[in-house]
Amino acid sequence: MTVPAPGLPARVRIHEVGARDGLQNEKATVPTAVKAEFIHRLAAAGLGTIEATSFVHPKWVPQLADAEQLFPLLGDVEAALPVLVPNERGLDRALALGATRIAVFGSATETFASRNLNRTVAESLAMFEPVVARAKQSADRPAHVRGYLSMCFGDPWEGAVPVHQVVRVAKALLDLGCDELSLGDTIGVATPGHVRALLSELNEAGVGTDRIGVHFHDTYGQALANTLAALQHGVTTVDASAGGLGGCPYAKSATGNLATEDLVWMLDGLGIETGVDLAALTATSVWMAEQLGRPSPSRTVRALSHKE
Amino acid sequence: MTVPAPGLPARVRIHEVGARDGLQNEKATVPTAVKAEFIHRLAAAGLGTIEATSFVHPKWVPQLADAEQLFPLLGDVEAALPVLVPNERGLDRALALGATRIAVFGSATETFASRNLNRTVAESLAMFEPVVARAKQSADRPAHVRGYLSMCFGDPWEGAVPVHQVVRVAKALLDLGCDELSLGDTIGVATPGHVRALLSELNEAGVGTDRIGVHFHDTYGQALANTLAALQHGVTTVDASAGGLGGCPYAKSATGNLATEDLVWMLDGLGIETGVDLAALTATSVWMAEQLGRPSPSRTVRALSHKE
Repeated sequence: MTVPAPGLPARVRIHEVGARDGLQNEKATVPTAVKAEFIHRLAAAGLGTIEATSFVHPKWVPQLADAEQLFPLLGDVEAALPVLVPNERGLDRALALGATRIAVFGSATETFASRNLNRTVAESLAMFEPVVARAKQSADRPAHVRGYLSMCFGDPWEGAVPVHQVVRVAKALLDLGCDELSLGDTIGVATPGHVRALLSELNEAGVGTDRIGVHFHDTYGQALANTLAALQHGVTTVDASAGGLGGCPYAKSATGNLATEDLVWMLDGLGIETGVDLAALTATSVWMAEQLGRPSPSRTVRALSHKE
Repeated sequence: MTVPAPGLPARVRIHEVGARDGLQNEKATVPTAVKAEFIHRLAAAGLGTIEATSFVHPKWVPQLADAEQLFPLLGDVEAALPVLVPNERGLDRALALGATRIAVFGSATETFASRNLNRTVAESLAMFEPVVARAKQSADRPAHVRGYLSMCFGDPWEGAVPVHQVVRVAKALLDLGCDELSLGDTIGVATPGHVRALLSELNEAGVGTDRIGVHFHDTYGQALANTLAALQHGVTTVDASAGGLGGCPYAKSATGNLATEDLVWMLDGLGIETGVDLAALTATSVWMAEQLGRPSPSRTVRALSHKE
């Protein structure tokens, strides 16, 4: 049943991350042809923004080592296909293949910047500067640049992350030229008041919700409640992963992304337009779970596929 | 990190249903001594209301056939211990053992009333009438009576359930003398706008949130988002099941209750008092999962027990 609630947006743009963030965190490496079919099916299910792959060094993310082979298979996909680039070398590879939307991956905390990027936060921003600048000038039309900001709520080594610290790095990413930010709760510890506080302080610092996406993890089961809080604060871009890809249902710790199906169930119920056909999306996730040889951790996928 | 949000209650009373609603829906039958230890541990973890068992005919719910043996083992538990009674015979058994809080289990839809209670909704209300009346008059102090109302949002046979239909049965249960209602989303299909609409219409009909508890299922992953919506509307009683008991993590369809740990994680983060010690509760659910021979479906239990 569709029952709208006041104060929520009429439409939400889902930034689908399953093919990149999801598959990057799966144990199994998926064949290139399967990835291409996955992305085609996601687009056919109505997802308009599908992060396709990452042009990172294969040594670091072997699951996505086939970016050069995959991307040319996606020319006929009717969706925006952003790709992650870690540095100028990655940007070169992406642009050479015709990518028009890129994303960089920053950290709100020094510890994660050091462990993930082997740099301080300031050094990572300096590394992104030419990447973003060249992305904006190199194409016939400037590329769209998304800035991921990880560890926006808690950090495994530093604990709770102060809101003002996140705002500082967020502003720095926008100052570099990023068109939008994705605020990541990388370890899934956020709760709705914290989400609201961060969005409020960003707004006060001049960063409107039109430039903000939210990226919640379901580690503690909080992702959808946090999403609701973000929508109530005006956010209209939500990251999610088809079938909850990236989180193993059998692992003791299911650290996965919010499942796109669980998100769409809520948005459909609220009468918020997404353009997504939930049945087609669920069928796609069931098929991908078969490729991976394990069930989907998405509750909606499990409930709907059980019925069929 | 604790970050309150405006418009939420300062304190929430958790109505713990794991020992009754949870175990009733597990395949394994748990020994009486284990149930008693479970309830003692739940109380020690700070849960103040623990639904203990059901005085239903053993033929219908074999998992709880030991109610007569279990209840006397709970005399020293420092918590309120409501028990479910289906009819006058069940009430007699419960009162004979000294129960002071009972619950009846009604349906908002005719189809579920017919299938679950073998009666029409009107006939089931007529059956509850003497149960509630005698519960209120029979003890030295009148028993506290909770009225469960199932299928408040959707019904597997009837589809979406009209709000006015739920309001009608809710008022009838209160008119019988029930002290509080528990609004059940038995098949887990509700979304936040629907929750808000039902609470609004109940309020308009004179049923304030002080007499309402919410009982959400995580079948489609919506339980915590729906809980947030209910708290924003003034609800302060939330049903939850320790460790998500009643939902199998390996089943295709995980139809379980909201896990108490996932709820407490959110409430702790919002600075809402519950009196519950999350670490002690998690340890209890890990222990119970070992008794049942399968992992807990609660994401918070999995994340916290993985760390320990």
